[in-house]
Amino acid sequence: MKTIKVGLLGFGTIGTGVVRVFQNNARVLEQRLGLRLELAGIADLDMTTDRGVVLEDGVLTNDAQSLLNHPEIDIIIELIGGYEPARTFVLQALKNGKHVVTANKALLALYGEELLKVAAENQVSILFEAAVGGGIPVLSAIRENLGANNFSAVQGILNGTCNYILTRMTENGEDFSLVLGDAQKLGYAEADPTFDIEGIDTAHKLSILISMCFGTWIDFKQIYTEGITRISALDIQFARQFGYQVKLLAIGKMEEGTIEARVHPTMVPEHYALSDVRGVFNGVRLMGDFVGPVVLQGRGAGMDATASAVMGDVISLSRAMAGGSTRMTPPLGFQPSLMQRLPVKAMADIVCHYYLRFMVSDQPGVLAAISGILGKYDISISSMVQSEAKGGGWVPIVMVTHEAREDNVRRALAEIDELAVIGDKSLLIRMENNLS
Amino acid sequence: MKTIKVGLLGFGTIGTGVVRVFQNNARVLEQRLGLRLELAGIADLDMTTDRGVVLEDGVLTNDAQSLLNHPEIDIIIELIGGYEPARTFVLQALKNGKHVVTANKALLALYGEELLKVAAENQVSILFEAAVGGGIPVLSAIRENLGANNFSAVQGILNGTCNYILTRMTENGEDFSLVLGDAQKLGYAEADPTFDIEGIDTAHKLSILISMCFGTWIDFKQIYTEGITRISALDIQFARQFGYQVKLLAIGKMEEGTIEARVHPTMVPEHYALSDVRGVFNGVRLMGDFVGPVVLQGRGAGMDATASAVMGDVISLSRAMAGGSTRMTPPLGFQPSLMQRLPVKAMADIVCHYYLRFMVSDQPGVLAAISGILGKYDISISSMVQSEAKGGGWVPIVMVTHEAREDNVRRALAEIDELAVIGDKSLLIRMENNLS
Repeated sequence: MKTIKVGLLGFGTIGTGVVRVFQNNARVLEQRLGLRLELAGIADLDMTTDRGVVLEDGVLTNDAQSLLNHPEIDIIIELIGGYEPARTFVLQALKNGKHVVTANKALLALYGEELLKVAAENQVSILFEAAVGGGIPVLSAIRENLGANNFSAVQGILNGTCNYILTRMTENGEDFSLVLGDAQKLGYAEADPTFDIEGIDTAHKLSILISMCFGTWIDFKQIYTEGITRISALDIQFARQFGYQVKLLAIGKMEEGTIEARVHPTMVPEHYALSDVRGVFNGVRLMGDFVGPVVLQGRGAGMDATASAVMGDVISLSRAMAGGSTRMTPPLGFQPSLMQRLPVKAMADIVCHYYLRFMVSDQPGVLAAISGILGKYDISISSMVQSEAKGGGWVPIVMVTHEAREDNVRRALAEIDELAVIGDKSLLIRMENNLS
Repeated sequence: MKTIKVGLLGFGTIGTGVVRVFQNNARVLEQRLGLRLELAGIADLDMTTDRGVVLEDGVLTNDAQSLLNHPEIDIIIELIGGYEPARTFVLQALKNGKHVVTANKALLALYGEELLKVAAENQVSILFEAAVGGGIPVLSAIRENLGANNFSAVQGILNGTCNYILTRMTENGEDFSLVLGDAQKLGYAEADPTFDIEGIDTAHKLSILISMCFGTWIDFKQIYTEGITRISALDIQFARQFGYQVKLLAIGKMEEGTIEARVHPTMVPEHYALSDVRGVFNGVRLMGDFVGPVVLQGRGAGMDATASAVMGDVISLSRAMAGGSTRMTPPLGFQPSLMQRLPVKAMADIVCHYYLRFMVSDQPGVLAAISGILGKYDISISSMVQSEAKGGGWVPIVMVTHEAREDNVRRALAEIDELAVIGDKSLLIRMENNLS
């Protein structure tokens, strides 16, 4: 039986999961592949920590070069994370004629174009299913079986930390900062949670989804990115009154050759697949012209689920190698020479329904003043909730608009916030309604 | 640019969808594949019906042999349906060295083993993503990216007709026969709906899922199959009171080398992914040892969604051919020589929670009599609803049990149905609780 040798860079949590797949599921891998996968070496600077797995002598090294230059290793798995030395090692592996599997969405979002180019030049592949949606096989679905479709939209809940926080705020009415603290204690959020809660991690993932759905390069700086830190338990309760849940949603759309690319807190209607994606789970909805809507859900992070996705890529590469294929499927699903560079719609031009929350002093004429300004900017209201004042202070007025233009909404809010009757800065949450 | 020629057998609804993909999405197929797919011929006995697509002269023929023996055609798409002549044509195509793509679950359930054997002997492949879950890319997900997992369970809502009927019964409180009539008028149910409503179509699909998840051959006659004709609007309302929806669920499980394989009306808890699969949509939940639960949802039938899945298989085969691969991925994901033939658990030995409905005369001692018999068979009750009698007649008593053995439940019901206080035959609905 043929053997394919694999080298692993990075022996952290996900790396340990990968080792566990090699050890625990060797039998099913052989049954499926008809060949043997051998984890020939693991490189990590930390050679002493006990990861709870037993390795044969000589497998663990602190010398990444010994794997990158190993003549018999055909596949390098990069699980170091971050930009350097991950980028240097990946480039080196590709130039040495080795296929690469990585879970590093930050690296791909910033250097993806370069890495894919070097891979193509060296007739090897770089796959990254684990970089988006953890264990959910969404990238391979787009690239393979759904490949006959033109996609018009992709929406995703792609960050487990944010979804955990929003789910607890929704189900228990708890406040953001309290839940964030708990999430940190439970290991669902980093000590510095900025990347997650400000939507940056989600934007990294969205840039990959957009390239794969629409066949376009996108600079991740072109993605409008807004985090969840301004969402209050109050907004979540109002959202529920209107029949919605608040999710940090990644939204990619293509219409007439222009891309929409945005990450922000979003109200999604209840009882659709994405509204039921709870806690640390992730979910992605794809809209194809033939297949219609397809929704995939699963664990978006964690040692084992991510290791499943990494090994899924190793399976693809191993099968292609075993068949002696001379032409690898392009990692983004499109032939690199046929990728486009489509324009991205300015955020000001986005059109959607909006949830607006104003904190007002409870006195006559407030509603007239607010609705007058909204009317001036062509923003019409489809429903409204005004709570009773509870002994002075500021009172929330909440509105859901018909379709309106972002630019108009922002200018209206700026003008409204100048009114003397307005307390706190007004809040908008965009809505995404067509999620059947 | 290289051209791969495809022949289509069967120019019905799905066949027309396939033609539309070739015509409308030629550009995206080229961008993704880097080669041209050409629909070289379509064979159908009906050469006159207008399908709303324009074909070049000479493409449509009534002579299937002209495609099966065409020296330049590499892929045959079989969309005739049924057993013959589909089986003969598929075997002939495989023996002529052509890859086959089919949506024919009935053919696969009965003759899959033979067809796969002939494909392997002739070093070609037969793929069938469209046979299960319409456009949902579930088979390719199991075979490819989730392939590093040992699966312990697969549950699916796989028949759009049944799900449409149950959804309307749930949302509108309508009766089975009324909704079935409407579904027939709307084209969601066949004139003879037996295959759908008796669960046979679902069992065909489950047999494929079980083979692909667990690497075992299963005779579809080994699948316990019960349809939805006995489910009443009353049961659906009671289910909702307990926080459940009633779905026709396909259930495949593997535990200690033994398979569970059953299709029956099933109560699934609300607010999980599968309970939100509504109308003609399908959904599949997979449980892998590393990935955890993964849920996929989408259109389970229809011209366009099914055509998407057919063309997804054509993409896979075309890529393998373009790369000159000498070794195709086995269609079931497992090397044929390493497939097993695992034993199937007898239905009598199944253990689950049960919903039981008794129609009783409203008189003292009824509950004591029923619960006495249940106790005798080790069946304990976790909750119960007894409605008030409305002016004589039979009154429903509804119970949800703790885990119980099917054999015990059946024997208890048989004994209870002998009681003089029991009106109509008692009903059981099995429950599936662990669907996170």
